[in-house]
Amino acid sequence: MAINPFESALQQLARAAKVMKLDAGVLARLQHPKRELHVAVPVRMDDGSLKVFEGYRVQYDDTRGPAKGGIRFHPQTDINEVKALAFWMTFKCATVGIPYGGAKGGIMVDPKGLSVGELERLTRAYVDALGDFIGPDRDIPAPDVYTTPQIMAWIMDEFSKLRGVNTPGVVTGKPLSVGGSEGRGFSTAQGGIYVLQALAEKRSWKPADVRVAIQGFGNAGSYMMKLLQQLGYKVIAVSDSAGGIVHAAGLDGEAVAAHKKSTGKVADFPGAENITNAQLLELECEVLVPAALENQITAENA
Amino acid sequence: MAINPFESALQQLARAAKVMKLDAGVLARLQHPKRELHVAVPVRMDDGSLKVFEGYRVQYDDTRGPAKGGIRFHPQTDINEVKALAFWMTFKCATVGIPYGGAKGGIMVDPKGLSVGELERLTRAYVDALGDFIGPDRDIPAPDVYTTPQIMAWIMDEFSKLRGVNTPGVVTGKPLSVGGSEGRGFSTAQGGIYVLQALAEKRSWKPADVRVAIQGFGNAGSYMMKLLQQLGYKVIAVSDSAGGIVHAAGLDGEAVAAHKKSTGKVADFPGAENITNAQLLELECEVLVPAALENQITAENA
Amino acid sequence: MAINPFESALQQLARAAKVMKLDAGVLARLQHPKRELHVAVPVRMDDGSLKVFEGYRVQYDDTRGPAKGGIRFHPQTDINEVKALAFWMTFKCATVGIPYGGAKGGIMVDPKGLSVGELERLTRAYVDALGDFIGPDRDIPAPDVYTTPQIMAWIMDEFSKLRGVNTPGVVTGKPLSVGGSEGRGFSTAQGGIYVLQALAEKRSWKPADVRVAIQGFGNAGSYMMKLLQQLGYKVIAVSDSAGGIVHAAGLDGEAVAAHKKSTGKVADFPGAENITNAQLLELECEVLVPAALENQITAENA
Amino acid sequence: MAINPFESALQQLARAAKVMKLDAGVLARLQHPKRELHVAVPVRMDDGSLKVFEGYRVQYDDTRGPAKGGIRFHPQTDINEVKALAFWMTFKCATVGIPYGGAKGGIMVDPKGLSVGELERLTRAYVDALGDFIGPDRDIPAPDVYTTPQIMAWIMDEFSKLRGVNTPGVVTGKPLSVGGSEGRGFSTAQGGIYVLQALAEKRSWKPADVRVAIQGFGNAGSYMMKLLQQLGYKVIAVSDSAGGIVHAAGLDGEAVAAHKKSTGKVADFPGAENITNAQLLELECEVLVPAALENQITAENA
Amino acid sequence: MAINPFESALQQLARAAKVMKLDAGVLARLQHPKRELHVAVPVRMDDGSLKVFEGYRVQYDDTRGPAKGGIRFHPQTDINEVKALAFWMTFKCATVGIPYGGAKGGIMVDPKGLSVGELERLTRAYVDALGDFIGPDRDIPAPDVYTTPQIMAWIMDEFSKLRGVNTPGVVTGKPLSVGGSEGRGFSTAQGGIYVLQALAEKRSWKPADVRVAIQGFGNAGSYMMKLLQQLGYKVIAVSDSAGGIVHAAGLDGEAVAAHKKSTGKVADFPGAENITNAQLLELECEVLVPAALENQITAENA
Amino acid sequence: MAINPFESALQQLARAAKVMKLDAGVLARLQHPKRELHVAVPVRMDDGSLKVFEGYRVQYDDTRGPAKGGIRFHPQTDINEVKALAFWMTFKCATVGIPYGGAKGGIMVDPKGLSVGELERLTRAYVDALGDFIGPDRDIPAPDVYTTPQIMAWIMDEFSKLRGVNTPGVVTGKPLSVGGSEGRGFSTAQGGIYVLQALAEKRSWKPADVRVAIQGFGNAGSYMMKLLQQLGYKVIAVSDSAGGIVHAAGLDGEAVAAHKKSTGKVADFPGAENITNAQLLELECEVLVPAALENQITAENA
Repeated sequence: MAINPFESALQQLARAAKVMKLDAGVLARLQHPKRELHVAVPVRMDDGSLKVFEGYRVQYDDTRGPAKGGIRFHPQTDINEVKALAFWMTFKCATVGIPYGGAKGGIMVDPKGLSVGELERLTRAYVDALGDFIGPDRDIPAPDVYTTPQIMAWIMDEFSKLRGVNTPGVVTGKPLSVGGSEGRGFSTAQGGIYVLQALAEKRSWKPADVRVAIQGFGNAGSYMMKLLQQLGYKVIAVSDSAGGIVHAAGLDGEAVAAHKKSTGKVADFPGAENITNAQLLELECEVLVPAALENQITAENA
Repeated sequence: MAINPFESALQQLARAAKVMKLDAGVLARLQHPKRELHVAVPVRMDDGSLKVFEGYRVQYDDTRGPAKGGIRFHPQTDINEVKALAFWMTFKCATVGIPYGGAKGGIMVDPKGLSVGELERLTRAYVDALGDFIGPDRDIPAPDVYTTPQIMAWIMDEFSKLRGVNTPGVVTGKPLSVGGSEGRGFSTAQGGIYVLQALAEKRSWKPADVRVAIQGFGNAGSYMMKLLQQLGYKVIAVSDSAGGIVHAAGLDGEAVAAHKKSTGKVADFPGAENITNAQLLELECEVLVPAALENQITAENA
Repeated sequence: MAINPFESALQQLARAAKVMKLDAGVLARLQHPKRELHVAVPVRMDDGSLKVFEGYRVQYDDTRGPAKGGIRFHPQTDINEVKALAFWMTFKCATVGIPYGGAKGGIMVDPKGLSVGELERLTRAYVDALGDFIGPDRDIPAPDVYTTPQIMAWIMDEFSKLRGVNTPGVVTGKPLSVGGSEGRGFSTAQGGIYVLQALAEKRSWKPADVRVAIQGFGNAGSYMMKLLQQLGYKVIAVSDSAGGIVHAAGLDGEAVAAHKKSTGKVADFPGAENITNAQLLELECEVLVPAALENQITAENA
Repeated sequence: MAINPFESALQQLARAAKVMKLDAGVLARLQHPKRELHVAVPVRMDDGSLKVFEGYRVQYDDTRGPAKGGIRFHPQTDINEVKALAFWMTFKCATVGIPYGGAKGGIMVDPKGLSVGELERLTRAYVDALGDFIGPDRDIPAPDVYTTPQIMAWIMDEFSKLRGVNTPGVVTGKPLSVGGSEGRGFSTAQGGIYVLQALAEKRSWKPADVRVAIQGFGNAGSYMMKLLQQLGYKVIAVSDSAGGIVHAAGLDGEAVAAHKKSTGKVADFPGAENITNAQLLELECEVLVPAALENQITAENA
Repeated sequence: MAINPFESALQQLARAAKVMKLDAGVLARLQHPKRELHVAVPVRMDDGSLKVFEGYRVQYDDTRGPAKGGIRFHPQTDINEVKALAFWMTFKCATVGIPYGGAKGGIMVDPKGLSVGELERLTRAYVDALGDFIGPDRDIPAPDVYTTPQIMAWIMDEFSKLRGVNTPGVVTGKPLSVGGSEGRGFSTAQGGIYVLQALAEKRSWKPADVRVAIQGFGNAGSYMMKLLQQLGYKVIAVSDSAGGIVHAAGLDGEAVAAHKKSTGKVADFPGAENITNAQLLELECEVLVPAALENQITAENA
Repeated sequence: MAINPFESALQQLARAAKVMKLDAGVLARLQHPKRELHVAVPVRMDDGSLKVFEGYRVQYDDTRGPAKGGIRFHPQTDINEVKALAFWMTFKCATVGIPYGGAKGGIMVDPKGLSVGELERLTRAYVDALGDFIGPDRDIPAPDVYTTPQIMAWIMDEFSKLRGVNTPGVVTGKPLSVGGSEGRGFSTAQGGIYVLQALAEKRSWKPADVRVAIQGFGNAGSYMMKLLQQLGYKVIAVSDSAGGIVHAAGLDGEAVAAHKKSTGKVADFPGAENITNAQLLELECEVLVPAALENQITAENA
């Protein structure tokens, strides 16, 4: 990541402050994260050795309520990225009017190189190191890049051990079986739909005339396709990491999903033409949905 | 400070680990501070404006007991310096066998540019930001560069407000009137004396033959002179920021202290010859005591 | 205030106890406030001097839930007034069936003589002195005479600092921007409407035939006028501290509000006749709404 | 008590402030108790009825450490007396240089009219009402007028129940069997001895020439007689509520104590002359020890 | 109770585990209660003597949320019964999908042999002994055999005293006046109705053809009769401890309730035939409702 | 263990109560442990399976201070043994006049069948299950049968994690490096010496004439030999699990210890005669020291 994302965030703030003639004191507060904790996270590896990882948690602002934001496990995450994401979370929560502030956390680790046991011990040691820094009334983590519902369950369990009582409210994105939200699965897609509907109204679009290309068929992309078709939009192309398909008359979402489930990819869908991801990005369409994982790494955070 | 002091500390650690064949896991833990908190400290200035300062508190290790270390207010303090000082505190406490770990904190501010009211508000806001991160059972601050007993009293008072009960144990270095230690005044000098006595015994020195030059006549230097004379050492030179004096036959400590008290400087002491600080450092002597403030900035930390 | 209001409250209680043959033990408990805290509130004034004010908080009864009641800043408030108001709050909450007990607090101070900074420091020092005596599960203050939403925000912020987490539930009457209730603005008027509607039904009044005179055009009075007109009542007169207006055929509430906004007073409203506040009180009407500030001083408490 | 004791205390303060030119801000703080709590204490009486008593606890100042002071059960105790005693405790602790502030408490009740069960329930209900207002780090009660070691044990037990752990440090004056101090029995007398010794030295008295008359033979008086004789003073008279005895050549303390133990009074001691308490007060002597209960009511407080 | 109920519960578990091929680790956890606390409960009896009772509280599992379950006062209750009931509560809560685990408690005592005062002191001492073992976020008791709403109110009051704030959420089954649920009265009967309705649908029963016999006319039985008639079922027989009545054409529930209220028994109801409880159990009918107290002892637990 | 040890303890109590005419209420309290907690302790085994062990902790009485007593890991430990040991700890602490009550705990497990990792996980899971049931102010465990200083260190570390601060006071018997007591090593032997010295004084024994046989040469036995020789006693025989040695003129303790260290056994000590443990127990001597492990299982508890 060549440009420092926190510098970039502060430049956005500076431009906005100038436009709105923001009070200098308020600007000064918004230029610094309120609290930023770095912790050493020791983990006993399966081979008996002890490794120490660096973890972070940044609470950028909690004026409007408990801070909220994801935790990412990624070898290239660094404190400037985490600060920038916590900054953006602050404004995202404020923009949609929910009583939460903005936070973000991460551990510098490549989770693909860890066994399940090592991953669990890493997660629990991180929670032990954070201690009361998080909590339902203070700061509520969520899944992010390479952190799964299972990891959220470990966080909830370890935090509950420290508190001495079950505390499911300490994280969102838990598995349904331990109190997770049924709405989480489709919420990223649903958010995109709300934006699209507002745009469609402004431009007087009729859904049947709107051509949509979706890059990515993971959680966000597949729900997006489903929701778009319920509203009558015409999804002309979709892809996954193995390549994409296009069909100018529109694809049948349910059929594509069934094809993906049975073959493991969207390519070779009967009646559609195979394309590359690069080609998909250059299709003529009204709406392009960037839902591939590499996009999510910088964009998704809850 | 051209070299990164924390890098320097890690190099010391690496050399020591090699010599003692330190276990790799233990070495890994000692290469990272356990917890490091950065906070934004907002202060309403006397002119009505709001400024935000950056503050730190690093707890390098607390295996042996609550972390312990000073807080400095200095415009050039930075997180690497604070981490290095917290690292060294860990080893200092362990070396002398007291049940404390190592910590250090600081605020990037030039306290000379603040009014007393601003300094108090800055100190209290820093304590509010740290909250339960410090405490008698967890981490106990102390005075350091540009932090005075008065500042320790503010810390104690603010922390006691947060806890709801008087908690004098949260800081050392308090004024005597609110429970400070009577030994603190002369303890830096006394520590130097212990080292000198050990050296003298090893070298079979007789105090009367040992010539001592003391640079600086603040708390450390003046107590040093007093204690040295009680033990029969010959203090031949002493200085303050206005210059020094030398007298080969030895200076009378009590008389020099009285002269400094009435004239505000040690220079022009009757029967002694005036010298510069630079000349003092090049005097022929057995022992040189570097007790000027600029030395303390890097050396003193409790 | 010539008669002791708490004596007056106890006489009311004695009469009610006699009528309902109240159990002697229950009566004994109701004759004493459960807890009554007096605190010294030190404030550094803008001129550098230190003043100490007397503050109170009385929790009369919390059998039904956390105690609830306003805080007033008034030079003539005294402990007997505060006890009486806390007593009445107990019965007000019980009467409307909400799970709260009764409380009241106050500081003996003329807030008009304080700068904004002094007022903030006074408020925060009062909260520091109360400490855990209040809280969302224990006792929840509210605005009262001369205590504004801004003061509630300071209370919330200071209490949150003591607790270490944002605790908006510690006060009601906060500004909307930090979580205040949207209903608070019109709730005093709405309460009057409920009473009036019950009376109208009992007396078989038709709204169009009911003449209403409103003394006062602050928060309570202006919302009252708006709500009355929505229901078809005929508001024939209204006043503020500069005098009133009367129009037998009924006044147009929206037009009066616009006139007040542009001219700063209700007098000289086109098509109406100017009257004094004294004259308003003697108008022939079915309903008189006493909504001037001096009435509120003894009547309003939440 | 005709004069308001708190007014009297404030006049003492005013005189002292004038002499020492006390800072106006400090004087302002010393003119108000820091915290003063009034509680209703409901007690189920043996006949099944419910009575409610008024209790107080005043923490005058805790700058120097946890507040300290007795609790009295007396029908004529009132808040002004309690405030005055808490004021005096503040200065007593400061004068002798121990790290405690000043407090005092009381319940308006005639304990002689209560059964043991009622007294226990009253004491426990008072502790329940105080809750966290007291505690080893905050405010530590002690016995006072009509409050015995047994009552202190109930306070300790009830407070420990609320805390969930044994907390013997919440009161002093406990029975020895639950951790009370062995020194408490003779400490009042010992304090008098220290004062007398200082006076004797100043006046160059020889103990054998010093005639002492002791009014009262309870805890304070009997220990006083014992300690005086160990130091060689001549105790010429002593009394209890049934009258006194005088013997110009000096009384044998051990023999008087044995006589009191077997007959229940000091009068009719062989070889001494019976006198009234009034006569004792007018005997010619160097030292008069006022150790009767009625003196203690205003003087003793710990 | 000849067979150990906990052994019986474990056998049920073993059978279910075999059928569902339950993971061996999960089975191992379900074979042991998570936490089981035995306490000595000392009570001062009315005659002045001190008795000590044995009390229990078992939290079988709290994976799904705070543990939930009744408290029984019964001379034959023992730890195996309590463990079994806590086991069953775990599965009952899970089956109906509410976020609670399973618990149960009891005291070995015959409450009929205690005065009201002794019963209150026993209950409060039990709560003091449990302390933080229960609580709204941890374990929430409820009424069970011989424990009444009044006892729940004592538990709530004592627990609130320990916590220092009103904590109504610590028990269910409180009296309505202190926050109890309005639905509790008929909920046992309502639960039976839900089961019956499901059965009726499965068997295509028409309510008017379904003959119901109800043994017991306490809370459960009387509400059952009322609800059954609202749905059109034909209640042909009902009983209480004094015997029963039968009427093949169906009984009028309201009339039976009125008869029971005025005569204290259901027997001798005009137009019905008296039967014994034994006869009622052998009547020909589609549905038999076992709602007598002796059935509830093992079956009811909340 | 054929007889129930708790029954045996209660019989001792009954005999003592009869002799001292103990108050019936006090006797009743002493017949029941105050609190007794059973917990399920789940452990992930090295082979991936999950096992659940039963653990206990009994606090028999804490009237005199925090409860104190060991934790044993033994396959045959059961709740009656643990209750008996907690009962005896209560009287041991009271007898020697230290401010502690009596407790005991255990886990039913054969620690020899566990790997180090499994043992650590078992210990930590037991502490997690106990939670706040133990603590420096409440109940302080210690080593006992098969629980080592290493296990105490794990307990201290896990408890400190739950509390969020280092809490070394939660256990005694820690390794010296984390704050253990230097006196613990020889304290069992020293206790025996105190008893022996009292007996010797009573019987007017001269140490040089006193023949001592010591069974066992572990911690207790080897320190015993050392201390006895410092006092001039004649140790004629000593043994370990491999057999013993005897020398009528007395053995040289230092030499025997050196022999044991180099050969791993006491047998074959030059100049002494080999004997069996059975023979040692039948030697003619004044003092027999039963310090073999099988004796310690029932006798040692701290």
